[in-house]
Amino acid sequence: MSDTVHATDVVIIGAGPVGLFAVFECGMLKMRAHVVDALDMLGGQCTALYPEKPIYDIPAHPAIDGADLIDRLAQQAAPFGPIYHLGQQVTSLTRQGDGWRVGTDKGTVIDCKAVIIAAGVGAFGPNKPPLEGLERYEGTGIFYLVKRRQDFAGKRVVIAGGGDSAVDWAISLSEVAAQVMVVHRRAKFRAAPESVSRLEALVKEGRVEMVVPYQLSGLEGEGGTLTGVRVADLDGQEKVLGADALLCFFGLAMNLGPIADWGLTLEKHHIAVEQRTLATSAPGIHAIGDIATYPGKLKLILCGFSEAAMAAHAIHPLVHPGEALHFEYSTSKGVPGA
Amino acid sequence: MSDTVHATDVVIIGAGPVGLFAVFECGMLKMRAHVVDALDMLGGQCTALYPEKPIYDIPAHPAIDGADLIDRLAQQAAPFGPIYHLGQQVTSLTRQGDGWRVGTDKGTVIDCKAVIIAAGVGAFGPNKPPLEGLERYEGTGIFYLVKRRQDFAGKRVVIAGGGDSAVDWAISLSEVAAQVMVVHRRAKFRAAPESVSRLEALVKEGRVEMVVPYQLSGLEGEGGTLTGVRVADLDGQEKVLGADALLCFFGLAMNLGPIADWGLTLEKHHIAVEQRTLATSAPGIHAIGDIATYPGKLKLILCGFSEAAMAAHAIHPLVHPGEALHFEYSTSKGVPGA
Repeated sequence: MSDTVHATDVVIIGAGPVGLFAVFECGMLKMRAHVVDALDMLGGQCTALYPEKPIYDIPAHPAIDGADLIDRLAQQAAPFGPIYHLGQQVTSLTRQGDGWRVGTDKGTVIDCKAVIIAAGVGAFGPNKPPLEGLERYEGTGIFYLVKRRQDFAGKRVVIAGGGDSAVDWAISLSEVAAQVMVVHRRAKFRAAPESVSRLEALVKEGRVEMVVPYQLSGLEGEGGTLTGVRVADLDGQEKVLGADALLCFFGLAMNLGPIADWGLTLEKHHIAVEQRTLATSAPGIHAIGDIATYPGKLKLILCGFSEAAMAAHAIHPLVHPGEALHFEYSTSKGVPGA
Repeated sequence: MSDTVHATDVVIIGAGPVGLFAVFECGMLKMRAHVVDALDMLGGQCTALYPEKPIYDIPAHPAIDGADLIDRLAQQAAPFGPIYHLGQQVTSLTRQGDGWRVGTDKGTVIDCKAVIIAAGVGAFGPNKPPLEGLERYEGTGIFYLVKRRQDFAGKRVVIAGGGDSAVDWAISLSEVAAQVMVVHRRAKFRAAPESVSRLEALVKEGRVEMVVPYQLSGLEGEGGTLTGVRVADLDGQEKVLGADALLCFFGLAMNLGPIADWGLTLEKHHIAVEQRTLATSAPGIHAIGDIATYPGKLKLILCGFSEAAMAAHAIHPLVHPGEALHFEYSTSKGVPGA
């Protein structure tokens, strides 16, 4: 726990693409920023969930994967010296004079003039299957995402789930794993038809084994090492799949978390904002990106970038009262100071 | 003159960065587009006025020059097969059934369901200082834009103006020119604070000379070659700055051209739109980017990109009536069809 109280101009909650771009936009207007994120790395969903998946609608990037997008945004923000507080969740947000005091579950305390909430879908985490001893193998034998495909090379992998992630990773890992088994409660998959066809072709070639209709029923291990996954059919009849790794793709549990308790006006698990300024119902607190909603809102990263710019401009008078903002065009703006 | 009447879903007026991204966004929603621009190349101001000038606020591009930005946007739009009609100005826009008929000064006629006006500042040209003999040196000693920075290498350069362009080019040319002098009527610059700080640092280092408060009063030359620029202080006291080049940055004279005659509601030479849909006062005509205005509007390219997305979504029901738009997140969108 830290006793220091940090002071800055703007606290940005969320270090995803939109939060990172907000650092840049604040910096262009001479507003310093601290950034807090529950994950222990930059990038939010982009790096946590699909670091290697290409994104096609970032302007002037015909295709860019999540990890590269985040690298470039972090590089663009860097000249403004943002302070990152990662791996900690903002738990309190209280009025402090004309500004706000932000507190995290790791004891970080930051006083600021304004807050930008760019928390995406809020705190999120994988839905986990109700298996005894699950936590014993998490990170060694049980995973909810693939960070590096190569980690599964030569392994016997059980993939559980019936959506796009399960199907896509079964296809992808069939190229490197020793064995890929797909466990799903139904014979039908809720995934892109194109991908399902590819999976079926791999099953025919014997490169993927389909274990349907089955569901996970238990784990087998020796000395902390996963050795097998028990599955049961609809009648409860069990069998054991010898396995080194179990990948569970049961979707994400989304949760606004403490944000729901800050008294902001919400609309169906999103923060209601004014489109022009991205202002929430609390003075000096603005929300941008996927977590913010207004009539006609599009949940596109590129729209979040624009919202970051608009929020930074709206906040400027709170941070630099009385200073006129001589604001012209994109291209006539100066070089960020190094 | 062409006798053919083209038919398409959307006509986009303006092939600058925002117009090009509108092609992409329309394409993602399965709407075909034709694009008309008065210039005979893609890019609008980006390629016409500052092809080599780096732009710093395009998200995930820490620095990109205008020409490269346009190349990438054209590449991103290409899979959707836009038809470009360049070097021609849209002169007429008339209601045709439920849609619009667009006519150009080269006789091109296009029928469409909706129109997106992304015409930037409209027809544009530089404001010129009222100096005798100005035209004698234009293009050889007097310039209103920098096409290639290297053209000023080793030269004595006078930069006139007090906005972002003057400040940014003073910073940039100080790296290559023999001498950079900045003439402005006031000591204060209307430029990004960050850039002004960098300029001040260069002045301290002796790499840029500040000539304030002064204004241009005359030109000196020999045999058609500029040799000096006369400047006067507020009392009319003159002095001569030895110079090989004078760069004037007094902004652009903007001219809506025929757009002013289409009956759209205007506000100070801009087209008034609803922020949510970018709809103008005429049904099926939307305006985005610098030419569009609404309360709180920021003239940033990155905001124009977001407007392109919102306009495309707003137009979708006109082009594909009754078809639901299954719209999710940036990253779950498919690959643009090749």
